[in-house]
Amino acid sequence: MIIGAIEAGGTKFVCGIGSENGEILDRISFPTQEPEETTARAAAYFADKNIEALGVGSFGPLDLDPQSPTYGHVTTTPKPGWANYDLLGHLKKTLNVPAGFDTDVNAAAFGEARWGAAQGLDSCIYYTVGTGIGVGVYTGGQLVHGLVHPEGGHVLMRRHQDDKFEGACPYHGDCLEGMAAGPAIAKRWGQGGDSLPEDHPAWEMEAHYLAEAITSAILLLSPKKVILGGGVMHQNQLFPLIREKVFRNLNGYVASSVLDDLDSYIVPPGLGDNAGLAGSLALGIQALTDKT
Amino acid sequence: MIIGAIEAGGTKFVCGIGSENGEILDRISFPTQEPEETTARAAAYFADKNIEALGVGSFGPLDLDPQSPTYGHVTTTPKPGWANYDLLGHLKKTLNVPAGFDTDVNAAAFGEARWGAAQGLDSCIYYTVGTGIGVGVYTGGQLVHGLVHPEGGHVLMRRHQDDKFEGACPYHGDCLEGMAAGPAIAKRWGQGGDSLPEDHPAWEMEAHYLAEAITSAILLLSPKKVILGGGVMHQNQLFPLIREKVFRNLNGYVASSVLDDLDSYIVPPGLGDNAGLAGSLALGIQALTDKT
Ligand SMILES: Nc1ncnc2c1ncn2[C@@H]1O[C@H](COP(=O)(O)OP(=O)(O)O)[C@@H](O)[C@H]1O
Ligand SMILES: Nc1ncnc2c1ncn2[C@@H]1O[C@H](COP(=O)(O)OP(=O)(O)O)[C@@H](O)[C@H]1O
Ligand SMILES: [Zn+2]
Ligand SMILES: [Zn+2]
Repeated sequence: MIIGAIEAGGTKFVCGIGSENGEILDRISFPTQEPEETTARAAAYFADKNIEALGVGSFGPLDLDPQSPTYGHVTTTPKPGWANYDLLGHLKKTLNVPAGFDTDVNAAAFGEARWGAAQGLDSCIYYTVGTGIGVGVYTGGQLVHGLVHPEGGHVLMRRHQDDKFEGACPYHGDCLEGMAAGPAIAKRWGQGGDSLPEDHPAWEMEAHYLAEAITSAILLLSPKKVILGGGVMHQNQLFPLIREKVFRNLNGYVASSVLDDLDSYIVPPGLGDNAGLAGSLALGIQALTDKT
Repeated sequence: MIIGAIEAGGTKFVCGIGSENGEILDRISFPTQEPEETTARAAAYFADKNIEALGVGSFGPLDLDPQSPTYGHVTTTPKPGWANYDLLGHLKKTLNVPAGFDTDVNAAAFGEARWGAAQGLDSCIYYTVGTGIGVGVYTGGQLVHGLVHPEGGHVLMRRHQDDKFEGACPYHGDCLEGMAAGPAIAKRWGQGGDSLPEDHPAWEMEAHYLAEAITSAILLLSPKKVILGGGVMHQNQLFPLIREKVFRNLNGYVASSVLDDLDSYIVPPGLGDNAGLAGSLALGIQALTDKT
């Protein structure tokens, strides 16, 4: 059985095909341009692949309410041409297969729960820390939707005592994304995170903000795994710093032995950079199962 | 059909019976004492009531994992005699009916979703602001469990600019409960919230902390309703203050028209002080449905 998957990012589209056990068999990637052109290119890729279903994990915000007349649309994005674009509708019309649709980060959380670091667990939370910060939430064996979908990259945190940075989020200033995404690091320290040395104070501060957000998420949701991906998390020294701060923040309050050893609780994606595409594949498989 | 319900609080037990449409037909209440004595008293109440199922919403922390050997136990509470007490087991043994079990605040969230302010919605979040702060989370038509269960009363927030109070939580100091539960108000201002005038600066500060936590919860979970109960929320002037601050915090970021008017989004419990007992009733009804 061949399933199609699209990781629809704001800067690039990744299209691929895979099998029902999560194996990615083929993939291509191209820049995200005008929506019509971009979806046409995706559809062309799948045209001769004989896919039985399609999964799409997309940049947002998205309308994920199946009852809504604009279900499957990208909604209020500032990205030229994409606001109110019927992404799912265009793909379904051309490819004519059952299709699953969710945010890129919910898809990644789903992929990790299916085949990655949270395999076999019924809950996990997935953060991507890159140009922005996105959060996918999986709980009770389901991806979380609601009014809209998780926007947990913008939660609020206690400020680091040495931090005078006002924050870079145009909406909130000092929210998580405003304090800890790649551009915030670059703005605060005058150079990008990829060029800062491993022992630079930036990383202790970065770990502080991520640990604040993760602590609150653990307290609110009690996820069985916390998975951290994205470009900034390539700085591996962040993991022990974050674990130590979360441990100190929780201070033994949550009664679970799992939290005694955070080394296997706060982890990188088990699927590495495949989490997003594999998650979209999982959405496609689910769409097929829901159909039959 | 008669269903039994217990709202098992740290200071008092409320036992009642109700019908499948949420109507409470009878109730009693007595102080929470030694566990054996307390459960015996509850069992005695139900003995002649002919209940077909029982729902229990309890103070915690609790073991809610049906696969666990200690499922249904109160776990690490400092309350004398109650640590590791098999609350559900004792009740089931005596009453011998299908029984549902969850935290008091998850029960309240469930009751509100079934018959209260979130009726007909598949998600809501319920805060009780009293001696402590508890949070119940309902999403995708399910109560949230995970490693343990939500402990969202202890999330972290940005500090109020005028606040020098170190916080009253023995675990975290300045977490939500440490800054905004009844005892924190009393400690910060030298007198209990119930005796502070309506225009006292305490309320703007109280609203600040609740708004911080609610903002982050909306961003992480996108609930369709936010419900605030408990003794402190009897200060009705808090509602407009909290709504205004949440509105300012979100700053238009979340793309949902529901958030244009927070008057009908951040609300008191539709069931008033019955939320907890009605929620336990709902847990009992669900246990019966799951059984058949
Ligand atoms: N090795 C690295 N160390 C620190 N920051 C990095 C590293 N690699 C990428 N980044 C930062 O991450 C951001 C890009 O994130 P990435 O996850 O790669 O893509 P995107 O979020 O755009 O999909 C940039 O701000 C970049 O500076
Ligand atoms: N009307 C009120 N205004 C302000 N605070 C109140 C009010 N009523 C109760 N409180 C505070 O709420 C706390 C008790 O909360 P309550 O929800 O009644 O019970 P509990 O949380 O113990 O179940 C106490 O700290 C008390 O000071
Ligand atoms: Zn923001
Ligand atoms: Zn605390």
